[in-house]
Amino acid sequence: MIIETKKASFNQPLYLESGRVLQEYEVAYETYGHLNSDKSNVIIITHALSGSHHAAGYYEGDRKPGWWNDFIGDNKPIDTNKYFVICMNNIGSCFGSTSPQSIDPSTSEAYRFRFPVLTITDIVKAQISVLKSLDIHSVHAVIGGSMGGMQALCYAIEYPDFAKHIVALATTAYTRPWAIAFNKVVTEAIRKDPDFKDGYYNTEDIKENGLNGLAIGRMAGHISYLSPSSMNDKFGRKYVNQDGLYELFGRFEVERYLEYNGYNFPHNFDPLSYLYIMKTMNIFNASRGSDTLEQSLSTITSKLHLLSFSGDLLFKPEEMEEIYNTMINIGKEDLVTYKMIDSDYGHDAFLVEVDKFGDYIKNLIEDN
Amino acid sequence: MIIETKKASFNQPLYLESGRVLQEYEVAYETYGHLNSDKSNVIIITHALSGSHHAAGYYEGDRKPGWWNDFIGDNKPIDTNKYFVICMNNIGSCFGSTSPQSIDPSTSEAYRFRFPVLTITDIVKAQISVLKSLDIHSVHAVIGGSMGGMQALCYAIEYPDFAKHIVALATTAYTRPWAIAFNKVVTEAIRKDPDFKDGYYNTEDIKENGLNGLAIGRMAGHISYLSPSSMNDKFGRKYVNQDGLYELFGRFEVERYLEYNGYNFPHNFDPLSYLYIMKTMNIFNASRGSDTLEQSLSTITSKLHLLSFSGDLLFKPEEMEEIYNTMINIGKEDLVTYKMIDSDYGHDAFLVEVDKFGDYIKNLIEDN
Repeated sequence: MIIETKKASFNQPLYLESGRVLQEYEVAYETYGHLNSDKSNVIIITHALSGSHHAAGYYEGDRKPGWWNDFIGDNKPIDTNKYFVICMNNIGSCFGSTSPQSIDPSTSEAYRFRFPVLTITDIVKAQISVLKSLDIHSVHAVIGGSMGGMQALCYAIEYPDFAKHIVALATTAYTRPWAIAFNKVVTEAIRKDPDFKDGYYNTEDIKENGLNGLAIGRMAGHISYLSPSSMNDKFGRKYVNQDGLYELFGRFEVERYLEYNGYNFPHNFDPLSYLYIMKTMNIFNASRGSDTLEQSLSTITSKLHLLSFSGDLLFKPEEMEEIYNTMINIGKEDLVTYKMIDSDYGHDAFLVEVDKFGDYIKNLIEDN
Repeated sequence: MIIETKKASFNQPLYLESGRVLQEYEVAYETYGHLNSDKSNVIIITHALSGSHHAAGYYEGDRKPGWWNDFIGDNKPIDTNKYFVICMNNIGSCFGSTSPQSIDPSTSEAYRFRFPVLTITDIVKAQISVLKSLDIHSVHAVIGGSMGGMQALCYAIEYPDFAKHIVALATTAYTRPWAIAFNKVVTEAIRKDPDFKDGYYNTEDIKENGLNGLAIGRMAGHISYLSPSSMNDKFGRKYVNQDGLYELFGRFEVERYLEYNGYNFPHNFDPLSYLYIMKTMNIFNASRGSDTLEQSLSTITSKLHLLSFSGDLLFKPEEMEEIYNTMINIGKEDLVTYKMIDSDYGHDAFLVEVDKFGDYIKNLIEDN
C-alpha cells in the first residue's frame, strides 16, 4: 500500500504539563484502511523514541516499509481491511510535527533550546486534538510499545472513556535508572560534540555530515535495545577482517553493526529532537499527579493488555508485572491481561517479534 | 599499611603474541606482607581494566586505599600476615608500566599509536619476567576478577606448573559481543573527540582538562558494571533538584553519578592506554591457539576456582559455568570448583561484595 503523510495544524495553544504553552502546533500523521460509518473501527498506533508516524506501507518509490509493517496491513494482525489505523508523529519529534526546529511564532526563529520540555501527557494531548479535528471522539484501541506504550498507558489513565482497548508492549509505569543512564550517555555525547554548537548547528550540515555525538550515543542506545544473548546469536565473535586481530581498530561484527547504525542515524534524526524526546521518557511517571500508582490506575475503564518480553533489559518484565499486579490489587482483574513473550531479542522484540505477538493482540481486541 | 611502588625494568625484548616486539619494558608493582624463606607464600593479584597495582594499603598521606583493600591486608581474607602478595600494573596501562605513552627507543618519542597491540598473554608474560627477576618461579595462588580473571585463566593455561591455585572471578573464556559493544562506545567516543587529536594530545592537558570522549565512554562503561536492579537500589528515581523536573537538563541522581565518575576519570587515566587495554579484553580468547576450549584447558594442573555473580551482565554466570563444565567434560573435576555468588551489584560485585566471597576464597586456597 502506497502511503502519504497528512498534517493537522492548530492555531490555538497547547497547554503543557510544565505550565508552558505552545501557541500553535502541528502534527504529521498517516492513516491505513478506511473509517467505517459509525467510526467504531479506529486504532491508534503510538510510536517510540526514534520512530515516526510511518508505521506501515510504502512511500511512493520507497523499498523500505513503515516500522511496524509486519503488524499492520491488509490481512495482517492489525487488519486494515477491518480497521482504520492512525499513527501520529509525536510532537517534539522531527518528522513533521512541531519540534525544537519549528519556528517559534514569538521570535520567528527556530525554538532550539527555547522549546518547552514536553511530557508523554503533552504528546497524547496533541494526538487527541488531531482526533477531534477528524471528529473522532473514541477509538477501538490504542497500541504502542516502549515509549509508545507509555502513551498507551497515558490514554488509559487520562482519557478513561476514550479507548475500548489499550495494548502496551515493552514499557513501564515509570522509567528506571537503567534506561535513564543510557539516555544520559546520549545526552552528554550530543552536548559535548563541538559540532552540536550548543544547539545552534545548521540542520542541513548535520543531515549531510552527521553528528558524532548523536552517533556514539545511539550506539549506546542500540546496546540497550539488545541483550547479551541476542548479541551472541546475532554476532558471536565474528571478526570483520580475520587478519585484523592485532590491528588496534580491527573490528568485530558487533562493532560494524554499531558503527553502521550509529553513524547513519544523525543523517535522519535531529539531535535537539532526540534530547527532548529522551526527556519525555526519563520523566514519564504514570502515577505523577496521584499519590500512588494504585490511585492513578483507578481511573481506568478500558481493557488494559500488557505484554512484556523475557529478554528486555530496558523495560523489564517485572515492570509490566507491577502494572498488572496493581490493577489486580485495585480490583480491576476484569480489565487487565498480561503476557510475557519468551524472546531473546531484548527490547527490540516489540519491533521484530511480531510473529510471536501479532495474532495474540489481534484476538485480544477482536471480540469487542 | 603504608605502601610504596616498586619498578622492574627489562632491557631484553618482550616478544608479543602479535609477532611484534617491545625492545625494553618496565613493570610497576607493589607487595604486601613478607616473602617466607621457601618462597611458598606468594599470591599474585591481577587487576582489571581501570585498576592498578595499588590493590591494598595506603600511599603516604592518602586517605583512599588500594582497590581491593577489604580483601587484602593483615587479618583480612588474603592475610598479609601469612601471604606475600604481589600486584603488578599491566603493561599497556598508565600507572608506571610500559604503555603507549612510554618512549619508543627506536624513535625517542612516545609510541602513541605505534605501540603494539597487546594481549592478555603478553601482559602475563611481562608479569612472569618480574617474578623471575624476584627469583619467584612458582606461586601459591593467582587471584583476579574481570580482566584480572582473564589473566588468572591465562596463568592456568599457559603456565600449568606455576600456581597451586587459580581464582578467577567475574570473567570469561572469551569476551562476548555485549562487552565488546560497550567498549566500542568508548573507542568511538575517544577517537571522535577533537581534543584526542588522533592520539597526539598533550598528556598534561588531558590530565588537567579531562577528555569528554573518554568521560562519556566511561559513563557507558559504568552502566555495564551495574545492573538494572543495582541501579534501582542505588538511585531509584531520585532527582538532584526536585524543581528541575521540567528543565531539559535537570538531572536524576543516576545522571549525577555518571557525570561524576565519567568526567573525573580522564584526569587519572590515559585515553591511549584505555584503547589498548580494551583491545586486550575484546580479543581475549582462552582457546586461541587450540582447536577448542577443551583442548586449551587440558593443560591445566592448578586448582581452578571460578566465581561468578548472579547479577553480572558483562561476564554472565553462564560464561563461568561454561569453563566449569568444560573442565568437568575433560575429566578435571578434581581440579575445578565453581560458585555463583548471589548479588544484585552487577559486574562491580567482584570489587564491592568482598563480604560475600572473601572468606570463601580464603578457605579455598588455605589447605594447600
